[in-house]
Amino acid sequence: MPLPVDGASPGASAPQFPARAPSVQDLEMKLQEAEEENRRLRLQLGELRSEEHEGDNSSRCSQRSLTEKCELIHVAIVCAGHNSSRDVVTLVKSILFHRRNPLHFHLITDSVAQRILGNLFRTWMVPSLQISFYNASDLKPEVSWIPNKHYSGIYGLMKLTLTKALPSDLSKVIVLDTDITFATDIAELWAIFRKFTGEQVLGLVENQSDWYLGNLWKNHKPWPALGRGFNTGVILLLLDKLRQIGWEEMWRLTAERELMNMLSTSLADQDIFNALIKSSPSLVYELPCYWNVQLSDHTRSEQCYSELADLKVIHWNSPHKLRVKNKHVELFRTLYLTFLEYDGSLLRRELIGCPSDKEQEEALEELDEEDVCYDFRRERLASHRVHLSFLPQKTLAEDPTDVTLVAQLSMDRLQMLELICRHWEGPVSLALYLSDAEAQQFLRYAQASEVLQSRTNIGYHVVYKEGQLYPVNLLRNVALRNAQTPYVFLSDIDFLPMYGLYDSLRKSIVQENMAKTPKALIVPAFETLRYRLTFPKSKAELLSMLDMGALYTFRYHVWEKGHAPTNYAKWRIATTSYRVDWAPNFEPYVVVRRDCPEYDERFLGFGWNKVSHIMELDAKGYELVVLPNAFIIHMPHAPSFDISKFRSSENYRLCVQTLKEEFHQDLSRRYGSAALKYIAAERNR
Amino acid sequence: MPLPVDGASPGASAPQFPARAPSVQDLEMKLQEAEEENRRLRLQLGELRSEEHEGDNSSRCSQRSLTEKCELIHVAIVCAGHNSSRDVVTLVKSILFHRRNPLHFHLITDSVAQRILGNLFRTWMVPSLQISFYNASDLKPEVSWIPNKHYSGIYGLMKLTLTKALPSDLSKVIVLDTDITFATDIAELWAIFRKFTGEQVLGLVENQSDWYLGNLWKNHKPWPALGRGFNTGVILLLLDKLRQIGWEEMWRLTAERELMNMLSTSLADQDIFNALIKSSPSLVYELPCYWNVQLSDHTRSEQCYSELADLKVIHWNSPHKLRVKNKHVELFRTLYLTFLEYDGSLLRRELIGCPSDKEQEEALEELDEEDVCYDFRRERLASHRVHLSFLPQKTLAEDPTDVTLVAQLSMDRLQMLELICRHWEGPVSLALYLSDAEAQQFLRYAQASEVLQSRTNIGYHVVYKEGQLYPVNLLRNVALRNAQTPYVFLSDIDFLPMYGLYDSLRKSIVQENMAKTPKALIVPAFETLRYRLTFPKSKAELLSMLDMGALYTFRYHVWEKGHAPTNYAKWRIATTSYRVDWAPNFEPYVVVRRDCPEYDERFLGFGWNKVSHIMELDAKGYELVVLPNAFIIHMPHAPSFDISKFRSSENYRLCVQTLKEEFHQDLSRRYGSAALKYIAAERNR
Repeated sequence: MPLPVDGASPGASAPQFPARAPSVQDLEMKLQEAEEENRRLRLQLGELRSEEHEGDNSSRCSQRSLTEKCELIHVAIVCAGHNSSRDVVTLVKSILFHRRNPLHFHLITDSVAQRILGNLFRTWMVPSLQISFYNASDLKPEVSWIPNKHYSGIYGLMKLTLTKALPSDLSKVIVLDTDITFATDIAELWAIFRKFTGEQVLGLVENQSDWYLGNLWKNHKPWPALGRGFNTGVILLLLDKLRQIGWEEMWRLTAERELMNMLSTSLADQDIFNALIKSSPSLVYELPCYWNVQLSDHTRSEQCYSELADLKVIHWNSPHKLRVKNKHVELFRTLYLTFLEYDGSLLRRELIGCPSDKEQEEALEELDEEDVCYDFRRERLASHRVHLSFLPQKTLAEDPTDVTLVAQLSMDRLQMLELICRHWEGPVSLALYLSDAEAQQFLRYAQASEVLQSRTNIGYHVVYKEGQLYPVNLLRNVALRNAQTPYVFLSDIDFLPMYGLYDSLRKSIVQENMAKTPKALIVPAFETLRYRLTFPKSKAELLSMLDMGALYTFRYHVWEKGHAPTNYAKWRIATTSYRVDWAPNFEPYVVVRRDCPEYDERFLGFGWNKVSHIMELDAKGYELVVLPNAFIIHMPHAPSFDISKFRSSENYRLCVQTLKEEFHQDLSRRYGSAALKYIAAERNR
Repeated sequence: MPLPVDGASPGASAPQFPARAPSVQDLEMKLQEAEEENRRLRLQLGELRSEEHEGDNSSRCSQRSLTEKCELIHVAIVCAGHNSSRDVVTLVKSILFHRRNPLHFHLITDSVAQRILGNLFRTWMVPSLQISFYNASDLKPEVSWIPNKHYSGIYGLMKLTLTKALPSDLSKVIVLDTDITFATDIAELWAIFRKFTGEQVLGLVENQSDWYLGNLWKNHKPWPALGRGFNTGVILLLLDKLRQIGWEEMWRLTAERELMNMLSTSLADQDIFNALIKSSPSLVYELPCYWNVQLSDHTRSEQCYSELADLKVIHWNSPHKLRVKNKHVELFRTLYLTFLEYDGSLLRRELIGCPSDKEQEEALEELDEEDVCYDFRRERLASHRVHLSFLPQKTLAEDPTDVTLVAQLSMDRLQMLELICRHWEGPVSLALYLSDAEAQQFLRYAQASEVLQSRTNIGYHVVYKEGQLYPVNLLRNVALRNAQTPYVFLSDIDFLPMYGLYDSLRKSIVQENMAKTPKALIVPAFETLRYRLTFPKSKAELLSMLDMGALYTFRYHVWEKGHAPTNYAKWRIATTSYRVDWAPNFEPYVVVRRDCPEYDERFLGFGWNKVSHIMELDAKGYELVVLPNAFIIHMPHAPSFDISKFRSSENYRLCVQTLKEEFHQDLSRRYGSAALKYIAAERNR
């Protein structure tokens, strides 16, 4: 009976000694292949035997039983910048999808990644997941003396410093590159630590490219390595033992020694790891190749798996990433895309039988199902995952008069972004309400848009979808909180600012002495019901279009109260700013200091979300001042596919009423008797 | 203790790359040694593995190795109606996600499910997946004599007939209910067949409710069962042995005997299975409970798992389905939602190392990457999964003058559906271009819409997203082919028909003698640039709105050619239909027989998709006839978030030009010299 391995063995029956005299090269190559095959077989055999040894003779699942239930697994990842932060999320999703153990991620980050990932994990609220951050700039001096040509830059070297960077009581850790996808439970990899014997302190997979053989091109001179060397995309680090044997001293000396010849590293830490291992091979426990299937170009990784189940960790270490040429790349792509687009909130599942904190669950249980606002309150308790600065964004120079346009949107308003960019050259802070799959669509859109690519002052903050109601005020707050300037223009995505509004507002901010007095500068709002509007170039043009019926004051037809207090009649002739009084249901678009009160997040879906904010500004004593030479125009759009309309509308109205009353009570509590006027106004409606 | 692998650690001592040049003899000897070592290792490995096969004493993982690589696994599912067809897809996705073996699904279906699933699997093109259909109506006589109160109706009883229904050479099969989700590789379940001993022919999990204990309420009298009885949501059927022992006779006699007391079954086939097992317990191999974790109300299933890894099959057998009360229901929901929204095209992955057909791949390889139309041609080769009649739809009574409105849309036009329903009471056939996740959103939307729920004459045909270009003509063809009436009105989703258009068209169909002469009846198209249009109630009202500038003839501002040949001036005063000539770029909205030529699917995205169709109608000799008392009006919408704009537009234009030329050539080939006029017209442009 043919054994499974036979079929797979290269040239099992092929003539080993060809008729014509073989060349030395031929033979060397064959020998090399045979030795490799040997190594692979010995590895497999070793595994099978060691499993048997431990009284468990099944092949690949057995490692599971080697990890204790609820044993904490530690993972370290170096991550810097906006793009790597996105990559880390996909890696983390693939780990969380398969995991059954509590995890502790140790993230070595620059300030950008720390802000993004700190916020993301705080809002993700995955049970049995701990996160620690380590400041990469603290580690820079450790490696900055090493010249490095690899695209990962100085961060590529930081894996060398982990014995020092990570807590001294952490005894072992799995170290991963950001371009890794897990196709299995990471506990299986963790279990391999127990197989380390003797001097073994590093678990590594052989390199699957010929780089270190030094024959890729003429005068190609790589750093020294054992054979093909090892890849450092996946490392098992036995930290305590590494500290004992003086790891830090070891790699430093190795690097210094080799740099005398090599001038710089080409593959960052990997060169140093390999040079060190070349002189001390006994430090390595060689991991089976499927723990780091390397999809570099010309990869030899195909020899590493004979079926899907063999794939455990995929490493997209080609600069071509998903477009790399590989026989099974389509298959690998499906694994990657699975996690790229996977709804991260589904990963909030608890580990059955492991301890976890259940704060949110308890809050949910306290809710009354009979309450008219049950759905509202339930959705408010939902924590929305937030991925700040989804795309690269430059830190703005400090400027005491600068102002950011703040808005929120979902996928159906994406086409407004380029338009707004054409009308507003200043900073923008946007909250985008997207599913994980839509976030990828948005990414492709933004990366393909010349207009958006030419801007570095836009913050795209993704809030992941959760529940059925549009969390409008949560979105506004995310965009508001993450604006970088002292002032914000609280707008909406369907409005186009007049040309020059950015400069105009900066001047008004100075003129109105905004730094000293709490003020809300009102930008009057208009609307058009037509596409193909010739956008007015001046207030004069706007007024004549208004007269001709090509424009209207905003919501004139449906809800005049919302903007009537702006006093459009006065505005027509105004040449200086003028103060107006608050009135019920007033909801103008305003410029305020960024430290203004936040929006009240109890208002979800539609209704009362801006009104309550303006009311609070008024309660806090903000002056409402209309700008005489500023305007925005609302562009038409088809009625939203508004998921909230599924709700029985009677219930909806009842609930908004309840929420309003609660808001009024809270306002009185905070602002005292001055806030009673809002309740009175409400009663006299 | 050092394991054999240690000695093999890279470069431990073996000088793989000797300093001096080795001789040929040296190398040959070494190679021989290495190859011998190789053979030895392979043998050892083979032995170890085969031992593992026989002495299987580990619990859950080892079952994998009991299934031969590429062994075909058979699964039978009974499925009837639109809603069950949707459920089956989620079940199938969960199986495909984990599977590593070729699969053969045996689907016992009514005509609705057979049409839907037949089309779905044909277009899904999953490698290593066979599908066979069995007509449920053929099996009805076998079970229709059994009175049954279960909601599954007669289909609930059909599992009893599988020994007869399935091919006589099929020796074993896994039988599944449609409300099942797999959380593991089905091969593990299949492997359990090998553990059957003695008289065992049925693999079943114990019931996890107290139903059969008969103590749920006063006078609750269930069918007889062993203890809690067994659940038939998951069954391992050893078909050949069942046939040998006369299964059919056995269950019939059992049913007849018990029905004398019981009058009817309450839980369909499950009652009969249990009554039979009660008298012949030796037939059962009891499966571990995690092979059918039953989420019914008051379930005892929690006793069945102590961690996530224990969950293998979840059975949503409560009428509350996802809303069932269970301690871990949130966890289970995540597993279910994972597959509900999973992109089915990612499941097209091949099984590494199992034979498969690669037609599509070869076609792809033949494409020229330098071709300006590479992207177009590549996307045309993509097979789009199609789920016909995603929502229930009634079969229409035959009517020789009936006409269906045909259109296609994506998510951003969903709000048009209710509007169209208000203007068109006749049948509608829609192709919806959606991702798997969007299809679920659409489902929630449609099920919550009173307007849509009140209609039974709308076919919603979901075409799943694939690639970057909108496959407009593929969508039109799906909607066209699946219309049920002899005539179709080929419209677009942004148009609202005049009130009464449906009746009016039916009259015109008779008057114009459409059954006898090939004709395309043109419905003149208008447009409004404003929301909040008061829709004209008559042609007279329309004309006066046209005069007032509230309406325009369609695309008057941007592309007059498209509709100019309709001759709007003549139409204003026409009281009878009139014939018009074809002219270049004419693209009117027409009523034709359903057996008209299909749209040319080479046109993707935007450009020439309707023009080419009208040209072919003309080539085929269709008379173009304008209806004097019919009209449609285009509603405004924001510019589409059109993914095709990512394409370099120059390339895009070049390619559309190439495709046009190819289309012209094909037209001449099919219609001869008569088609030369189109090329001439193109040249004179």
